[in-house]
Amino acid sequence: MLTPYECRCGRSYAPAADRWRCDCGGLLDLPLAAVAWPPRAGTSSIWRYLDAGDLPWREITLGEGGTPLVEEDGGLHLKVEFASPTGSFKDRGAVVLVALARALGAARLIADSSGNAGTAVAAYAARAGVAAEIFVPAGTSEKKLLQIRGHGAEVTVVEGSREDTAAAAVARVEQSGAFYASHVYNPYFHEGTKTYALEIFEQLGGAVPATLVLPAGNGTLVLGAHRGFAELRAAALIDRVPRIVAVQAERCAPLAAAWAAGLDEPGPVRPGRTLAEGIAIADPARGSRILAAVRDTGGAFVTVGEDEIAAASAALAARGLWVEPTGAVSYAAVRRLRGAESPLLTGGPVVAPLCGSGLKASL
Amino acid sequence: MLTPYECRCGRSYAPAADRWRCDCGGLLDLPLAAVAWPPRAGTSSIWRYLDAGDLPWREITLGEGGTPLVEEDGGLHLKVEFASPTGSFKDRGAVVLVALARALGAARLIADSSGNAGTAVAAYAARAGVAAEIFVPAGTSEKKLLQIRGHGAEVTVVEGSREDTAAAAVARVEQSGAFYASHVYNPYFHEGTKTYALEIFEQLGGAVPATLVLPAGNGTLVLGAHRGFAELRAAALIDRVPRIVAVQAERCAPLAAAWAAGLDEPGPVRPGRTLAEGIAIADPARGSRILAAVRDTGGAFVTVGEDEIAAASAALAARGLWVEPTGAVSYAAVRRLRGAESPLLTGGPVVAPLCGSGLKASL
Repeated sequence: MLTPYECRCGRSYAPAADRWRCDCGGLLDLPLAAVAWPPRAGTSSIWRYLDAGDLPWREITLGEGGTPLVEEDGGLHLKVEFASPTGSFKDRGAVVLVALARALGAARLIADSSGNAGTAVAAYAARAGVAAEIFVPAGTSEKKLLQIRGHGAEVTVVEGSREDTAAAAVARVEQSGAFYASHVYNPYFHEGTKTYALEIFEQLGGAVPATLVLPAGNGTLVLGAHRGFAELRAAALIDRVPRIVAVQAERCAPLAAAWAAGLDEPGPVRPGRTLAEGIAIADPARGSRILAAVRDTGGAFVTVGEDEIAAASAALAARGLWVEPTGAVSYAAVRRLRGAESPLLTGGPVVAPLCGSGLKASL
Repeated sequence: MLTPYECRCGRSYAPAADRWRCDCGGLLDLPLAAVAWPPRAGTSSIWRYLDAGDLPWREITLGEGGTPLVEEDGGLHLKVEFASPTGSFKDRGAVVLVALARALGAARLIADSSGNAGTAVAAYAARAGVAAEIFVPAGTSEKKLLQIRGHGAEVTVVEGSREDTAAAAVARVEQSGAFYASHVYNPYFHEGTKTYALEIFEQLGGAVPATLVLPAGNGTLVLGAHRGFAELRAAALIDRVPRIVAVQAERCAPLAAAWAAGLDEPGPVRPGRTLAEGIAIADPARGSRILAAVRDTGGAFVTVGEDEIAAASAALAARGLWVEPTGAVSYAAVRRLRGAESPLLTGGPVVAPLCGSGLKASL
């Protein structure tokens, strides 16, 4: 029995292959649960933390999760998310979505992504035996297309922006009835990414970090991490959640702009070209939820410039860590906040993820 | 106190920064120990299994090891070694070598590699604050050079073969007195790769696989895996070791040729160009030991052709697993042996590693 989707309008829906938003047009969420603890023994993957219910995860898993937490100086811990089966943290959410698609009997799924999410969904769809069609914006690198096709997925290149790509995917979903394996619209994705938080809690021996520094584009990691700690709080295993410092690139910062203006909902921005292409989302669908999550934790938004992103990448490489530019954004923010002696980093351990592998870069 | 090196001539040596072979010219080994079991709790990295002694691993580790073991059909388990911090199993050995260099007070280290080992050594040397010089053969991809240099290492490109590259590195070692961080000559590398075996033993719940299918070039994984199971046997935790099926590319198969001819020592071959560049070693220095290890287990050598390697890569991608061609060699051998209904795969679980990430490919 799968947990029903809920909409803020009051409707709820049993998950079905063709259900991806509310009849009112609203976003679907899942209710917050209290986490079961201790985790299940016998695996170090994310499935150690999840009540898998009817999900056929054993046939699909690549052992995602269980990534290293490396201690640096000054109480900073870096979570090596790029040491994941497809090279990014998106595996945590993608495996759950694809397992859901299979549980719901979907023969075909559709996703849209400029990169890591599309690759991850294609890989797990291949394992699950579910046909996949991945929509990507024109200009996506040959390297990424080669891999997505290598996993047997059909690639549809959309002339236009990231938003146009999503719109094309939605149109195909509506017309075909395929399962929409969207890391933005389907809240089961956050059931996967919440394990980021649960793993950190376990790896720190049951301590709660003072601060999580997290990149924010569509907010899959912010919302997942917040959910994980909120579910630990709901189970009375902890009495406070870490403050979340959400990071955007200066050149595409709709959430940071809304935060600075004290708004509950971001407005769309016209994005500039940024090294942090993985979080260059001009109009994030779950924007109000991301803002609310950060507010709930007593956190804040921070932006970083292109030079800071490049410098953070280089500094990580000089510490043996090879990340793609988007993956260096959280570390860039740590460096900026340290430079400013920000109180946002005080009070205990600080944890930042290195989201994607430097090997993904096009060269 | 570090375990002394031993030579077959009878000499032994306390490890020192400038010691990399015996005064007689022979290879250095380490004595076989009985493994301590159960492993240390609190980490899923390779350091769970090792008696680290004086090695300053905590300052250097990237959380290497703890890679997923994914079950496929017919009792085959694939070990996802490419989900490692630098994208290959070489991290297991490289971290031990660099920790040793640091423990011995080396200010500078030298390594030679056409790829994964050089990258791994450069990454850990960066973390350890030990200056690194990596010798690579001409023709090494820009992508690899960029990463090695990104980790702060100096790159020396050698015009000539893989063997010429090693000779140039040795000449520089002899002239400079730098620590030779060689995955071929330094037996501490196998202390790292032996954790491949210990991890499998633990992940299978204390069961011994019937067969390990392993790629063989310089034999770092064959010798390490054999050592791991031999140390479990020495501790009376198991009563037999798995048979090792060692795999070479048809176009560069000195060990398989020696095996077929019943020789104890390989002769050098003139290598052809193969997709499996990571194991294209024409004259492996530890050849006699690799042959002896395989013989000890009741195993065998198998060769695979270029078409089989390409087909195995594609078949893995269709299962969601993205590997570099060398990383598909062991799976190619499994497919060949299955096709021939070989008895080498009978009697229990079969485990094969996927050694390096497909993201490492040049595109």
